[in-house]
This record gives sequence, C-alpha cells and structure tokens, in this order.
Amino acid sequence: MQRYFLEESYTPQERYEVTGEPYHHMVRVMRMNTGQQVYLAFQNRVSIIAEITDMTESTVVLKEIAKEQQVKELPIAITIASGYPKGDKLDLVIQKGTELGAASFIGFPAKTSVVKWDAKKLAKKQQRLEKIAQEAAEQSHRQVTPTVELIATEQEFLTKVATYDVIVVAYEESAKQGERAQLAQILQQVEPGTRLLAIFGPEGGLTSQEVATLVEMQGQLCGLGPRILRAETAPFYLLSAASYQLELL
Amino acid sequence: MQRYFLEESYTPQERYEVTGEPYHHMVRVMRMNTGQQVYLAFQNRVSIIAEITDMTESTVVLKEIAKEQQVKELPIAITIASGYPKGDKLDLVIQKGTELGAASFIGFPAKTSVVKWDAKKLAKKQQRLEKIAQEAAEQSHRQVTPTVELIATEQEFLTKVATYDVIVVAYEESAKQGERAQLAQILQQVEPGTRLLAIFGPEGGLTSQEVATLVEMQGQLCGLGPRILRAETAPFYLLSAASYQLELL
Repeated sequence: MQRYFLEESYTPQERYEVTGEPYHHMVRVMRMNTGQQVYLAFQNRVSIIAEITDMTESTVVLKEIAKEQQVKELPIAITIASGYPKGDKLDLVIQKGTELGAASFIGFPAKTSVVKWDAKKLAKKQQRLEKIAQEAAEQSHRQVTPTVELIATEQEFLTKVATYDVIVVAYEESAKQGERAQLAQILQQVEPGTRLLAIFGPEGGLTSQEVATLVEMQGQLCGLGPRILRAETAPFYLLSAASYQLELL
Repeated sequence: MQRYFLEESYTPQERYEVTGEPYHHMVRVMRMNTGQQVYLAFQNRVSIIAEITDMTESTVVLKEIAKEQQVKELPIAITIASGYPKGDKLDLVIQKGTELGAASFIGFPAKTSVVKWDAKKLAKKQQRLEKIAQEAAEQSHRQVTPTVELIATEQEFLTKVATYDVIVVAYEESAKQGERAQLAQILQQVEPGTRLLAIFGPEGGLTSQEVATLVEMQGQLCGLGPRILRAETAPFYLLSAASYQLELL
C-alpha cells in the first residue's frame, strides 16, 4: 500500500484533503480511484490507513479507516553527521540511512573533505537530498521523513553538536586498536527519546585535532567492529546495530 | 598500510616472493621501495606484516616482520544469497557486504527476478564481482576474500542451500507482522564456525511458494526490524547485526 507524507499534524477529522505533490502522485502517477486505500503519515508521527472517497481537479478526499498501530520508528532519534564525502556518496548514505531508521542527516565540511560547496550549491544539493529522504521514507514505510541539513562551516557544525544528548564519534583508529565495547555500552544504556548524534569522517577520516575537539564536547569514540568500513558504509552499521539492540533484542 | 591477498597458503619462510597483480600494484601503482611495509594475507587466514627487501623486474621480495594478531573475521561464516536484483545492485551488495564481513556471496534466479542471464553472461559477471570483492576485502582489511558464485537455476541453488548449518530467510511479511525476535535468537545461539546462509529476495520479494520450499528445508523466517528494507539494504542490516552481536556485545 502506498504511503504519503503530509505537511500537517494529525487531528481527527471527518475528511482529509490531499493536494499538491501527493495529489499528483495518487491521481496522475498511480491513477488511483475512489475506494482505494493508502497510508497517510502526519508530522506528529501519527499514521492512518485512509480510503479515497472523492476526487476533484486538485484534491483527493479521504476518510480514516484505522490508525497504523505498529511503531516503525527507532525508540531513539539518531542523527547521522557525515563529513562531506566525494561524489554522490551522500545520496547513498541518505537513501539507505532512511531505510535503516535515521531521524535526520547532517553534512559538514571536515578537514579532509575534498569537495568544497558554496551556500548556493549546498542549498540546491540539500533540496535534492531531502527528496531522496522522502522517497526512501515512503518506500520503507517510515512514520516520519528524516530532515537533511547541509552545513557550510565547521563552527556552525560544532554549535549544533553541542545540542545533542549523546555524541558518538566513529573512529577508525578505535577499530584498528580493537576497541569493541563502547558502542554496545552506549546502545544498552540510552533511554527512549534520547537524541543521539553519530559523527562520521569523509574518506580521509577525521583528523586527530577534529577528534580531540569532539572528545572535549563529550563525544565518545567508538569502533564499529574489527574491519575498516568506508565513509558511507559506517552509518549503515551503526543504524543496524541500534535497531538490533533496541528493536530486536 | 596496503594489504595484498596472495594465492598461496602461509608457511614460515625466510623470504616471500610476490609476482603478478600484487607485484604490479606495489611497483607500478604505489611505486613502493625497499624498506616499505605491507600486509600479506594468505589463503589459510594468516596475515603478516612484511617489509620489502628487494625488487626485480617481475618480483618483490619481502621478509616477515610480525604476524597480524587481531582477528578481523566474523566468528561465523555468513553467506549472502541474493535473488538477482535489477541493474548493478549486486555490485553494491558485494562491495558493502565484504566490508561488513560476509564470507561469501551467491546470486540466484528468484521467481520475481526480472533479469535473465545465460551461462556466458553469468561467468563474465561473476568475474567482475569477484574483483569487487577482492578490492573491498583489501580496503577493509579482511583476512579472507569472499567468494562469489552466480547460479543459473533454482534447482542448483536449492541443492546448495541444503549444505548450510543454519538457513535464515529475510522475509518482508515477517517485518510487516512485527516479528522481531527470531534473528536475535539465532545470532545468540550460533556456535563459532557455523556456516550460516542468509537468503534475500529481489525487489519483488520471495514468493510464498519459494518461502514454503525454504521453510521445508529448515529455513527460518526473520524480520529485520519494523521498516521495509530494499533488496540490497537488507544484507547490510543482517551483517551489521551479526557483527554487533558476535563481535561487540
């Protein structure tokens, strides 16, 4: 069943009106008819199963059939912060990271990031990545669409880092030295609702200076197993491990 | 430090001679000199740190400095079997799956697989995928290179399925129905050395008939958390969860 994210919050109503892009997709792309059912996901994490009762030139009208009962969101909100990697690797991080349950994504200019984007380029790129997140959220039956924020300066990034409850720094040297327990300890102790920021370097990794700064800000260095993961693969490991610990165990 | 996989098994020697492709990479690509160190990974899972002592027109000569002590391989051997997905998604499964520790990969024609490859095409594709696995193994500091096998018929695949100790079937319906505990139970109970086969459908999923056949063969249906993962993302979840359970917890 198709899933659509709406921009409003859920309040119980006799009828729900869908316009704009989801209207276009229902009517023009999927050629839906009255009687068909879809998921509607609202901004306040409520999702309902709704049936199409009427269609006009610009609006699809639906009525609520049932609430979606199953919780599809991780009990903690994980933000994936990636030092800008090369090429379109951020696309992959955001598509797969959304499927795997990330709450939001941040891109930031790390010391070893090769790409340099100006504000205009960043704004355009962010829009494209938001679209990727939304499509992946619909496809993977998320109840919220992850946000994407591309940051222009290191200072701005560090200001943001300070606002999280738990800060995890994926550090290759930790993996090389065989550090294994830190991530498991963190995931076993987090309370539901915790806002966890997981920071990943670009291909060249984080510099020791960047790591030192993050540790001063209460960042906890974590290895992600004994193998060396690429910049874009490490977030998949962290999100899968979090789901396994918090949703399966 | 660069890592090279050699075709021979390790036996203690005064000097190790490297020819062929690793020779080419050391001398022509990396322009290494005597005194430089590399990892040499042998077929019998022994890896050493070795120093270049001499170079000729066709051979690099090295001496052993130390054994690599840290174990980089998962304690169980996980084979990822993917029903042929569209496009080059198998490339991604094999590159990332190798980083995440898979022991081997199988491609098989599932009922809903769209692509149809003949034996010649399969052989060519297998070669390319083996190359991807080897490069990813070197890059992620694996101690073994995963094998890749592209199978032409369902019957051949089922014959192979029967040879594994534990058979996991990733089943979207399990995720939808909220099944959560099966994978954790399996990973908590496996003995080191277990050969585990994890089977994933293509984009269209496994048919109920395919699932029934696999269940008859002792396949255990597992959900991978409450979100719906794409065909190429599900193996990343399983491998990460296995590493988390067996290497970090």
